Amino acid sequence: MSHAPDLTDIGTPALLLDEARMSRNIDRLAAQADALGVTLRPHLKTAKSTEIARRLGGPITVSTLAEAEVFHAAGHGDILYAVGIAPQKLPRVQALRAQGCDLTVILDSAAQAEAAARAGVPALIEIDSDGHRGGLAPDAPALVEVGRILHGAGLLRGVITHAGESYGARGREAHAEFAEMERSATVRAAEALRGAGLPCPVVSVGSTPTAHAARDLSGVTELRAGVYMFFDLVMAGIGVCEVDDIALSVLTTVIGHQQAKGWVMVDAGWMALSRDRGTAAQSVDQGYGLVCDAAGQVIPDLIVSGANQEHGIVSLRPGSTAMLPDLPLGTQLRILPNHACATAAQHGQYHLLPAGGGPRQVWPRFGGW
Amino acid sequence: MSHAPDLTDIGTPALLLDEARMSRNIDRLAAQADALGVTLRPHLKTAKSTEIARRLGGPITVSTLAEAEVFHAAGHGDILYAVGIAPQKLPRVQALRAQGCDLTVILDSAAQAEAAARAGVPALIEIDSDGHRGGLAPDAPALVEVGRILHGAGLLRGVITHAGESYGARGREAHAEFAEMERSATVRAAEALRGAGLPCPVVSVGSTPTAHAARDLSGVTELRAGVYMFFDLVMAGIGVCEVDDIALSVLTTVIGHQQAKGWVMVDAGWMALSRDRGTAAQSVDQGYGLVCDAAGQVIPDLIVSGANQEHGIVSLRPGSTAMLPDLPLGTQLRILPNHACATAAQHGQYHLLPAGGGPRQVWPRFGGW
Repeated sequence: MSHAPDLTDIGTPALLLDEARMSRNIDRLAAQADALGVTLRPHLKTAKSTEIARRLGGPITVSTLAEAEVFHAAGHGDILYAVGIAPQKLPRVQALRAQGCDLTVILDSAAQAEAAARAGVPALIEIDSDGHRGGLAPDAPALVEVGRILHGAGLLRGVITHAGESYGARGREAHAEFAEMERSATVRAAEALRGAGLPCPVVSVGSTPTAHAARDLSGVTELRAGVYMFFDLVMAGIGVCEVDDIALSVLTTVIGHQQAKGWVMVDAGWMALSRDRGTAAQSVDQGYGLVCDAAGQVIPDLIVSGANQEHGIVSLRPGSTAMLPDLPLGTQLRILPNHACATAAQHGQYHLLPAGGGPRQVWPRFGGW
Repeated sequence: MSHAPDLTDIGTPALLLDEARMSRNIDRLAAQADALGVTLRPHLKTAKSTEIARRLGGPITVSTLAEAEVFHAAGHGDILYAVGIAPQKLPRVQALRAQGCDLTVILDSAAQAEAAARAGVPALIEIDSDGHRGGLAPDAPALVEVGRILHGAGLLRGVITHAGESYGARGREAHAEFAEMERSATVRAAEALRGAGLPCPVVSVGSTPTAHAARDLSGVTELRAGVYMFFDLVMAGIGVCEVDDIALSVLTTVIGHQQAKGWVMVDAGWMALSRDRGTAAQSVDQGYGLVCDAAGQVIPDLIVSGANQEHGIVSLRPGSTAMLPDLPLGTQLRILPNHACATAAQHGQYHLLPAGGGPRQVWPRFGGW
């Protein structure tokens, strides 16, 4: 506790960001991308912060056009909007491109390709590598059809996939298999396009689990990941990181007790933590989050076992033989999140705990679409 | 579909508010409070909108000090902050009171009462009527002790309870029983205080299910409820409202298909809908929401069966024999939310569909603490 920062002036609940851990996480995946010989295109859907984007530099991925607009205004010129494009959104894409932003979209149908071609917007074709959501199979006849429509307008940039199912698999070996599924699906799709005389300069893959576990990305040109900069309990639960790598936490204050039940009430409910219960299906259910003291040290077996809108119920994990520590009214605690993307989305700012100590900073976050 | 408003200029996903339904819901509970002879003190934790607060008028309840500050600045003078007070928050309460706001807090311990007494902040004592979260039992010896501390400083306002467990009970009969639990617990607590020579002018009860089902509130002075102005699928699932009463929906756009799986991909993922799966434990699991056409008509058996951050997967309910309708790329749909509080919190504004037709309005929402 001797190096604990003084957080008592922060109104709770509040989102804390441990800069040293974030920097370590960012450097770790950058080194991995270098070793694999691919370009890293970080996904900023989790961060939604121009300060964090500046640390990353280079090409980026976004999940909303609002992100594309904010990050372009902050100086980022090479942006991939990685959600299937609706034709109604193309005017906003065109407006950014007219301002000099190299904004690319993704799509998986002829109707979308025709709309993109009419709008003069370049696109990647989404490939389904694991049955998770959108995308064409690598051997789908529609792939070449879509490719021809885009290429006819000089707008075919390549192929993209995301193995979202990797979040449900545990351990490096399983994640490496998903990484190979991403690689082989996109490389087969690229070969199908090239075999039909079409260009496919970009072969883009990634998710946080697969990006860290990939051993060989032959044929791939770029790697994407988002939550890796913060990590969370879901990622720790599947073995992508350690709990000590989690850079994000929610600062909260004890507001009451129900001693007979072993409950400590805190002012972080689901509004501050999100409704995400991503660890519920894992081998260790962390409730709405794992509880640490104000210095960030995990308190053994203490979790947020229940959450109302502005109330969290902190208690020992079911079956625990640990002792409930004395946590008087007003005590500050930190909650590690199940899912950093969902928890961060509940907050308008990060309270940055600087890597070298020194004064805290407040970094704004944005939301919306 | 003939009276459907034109929503095609709204960028999706977006939060829609049906004014006619909201007004009907507001009027319904106002009439119920009148009939029961109690003051209605609506909870604005769900609305977080000064426009909606203005419609309600009168005393209000809030869940954050940010709400108290915004609503006081908008002209509301009688505000109850209904989350157990942390001593660190009393300076903000004092600042609002110094500006003329009659802001009251709640608490359930001697330590909190001593802090409130030192700060000169009036309080209600929280009573536990159903084991849901905080509060003292009506016969707890601490009740009179806490009452004496507050009364010694002239700050004892009364007692308050909230039967949050009523959300898990189905049907008017069950909710009426919870309403009676709220009434009897608070009235017993008030009698215990009065029996010790202490005043107890305010006896405050309520939750949306109990407020609608209460038959007799003898001894109670005020009634609180929040989600009732919008309603949602959780409330419909326990019989507090009909699906046609739900005033809030998320407008979304079809962005793709996985035809072999019967999936329609839309641009409302959990970021737009929230991670709330409140109907999962009910007899009809609505997934992440029930799907309507753009005019607001429910499409039989169509739900959001899966959600990624910015992708929703729309499909027929498991076991349905309905036909998946043709929903081409670009089609607009509306999603009714599981939990209005959680879904609304994901959005920065309401797109108001006015009761009498006429031009749409945009009403800002706020968040934070």
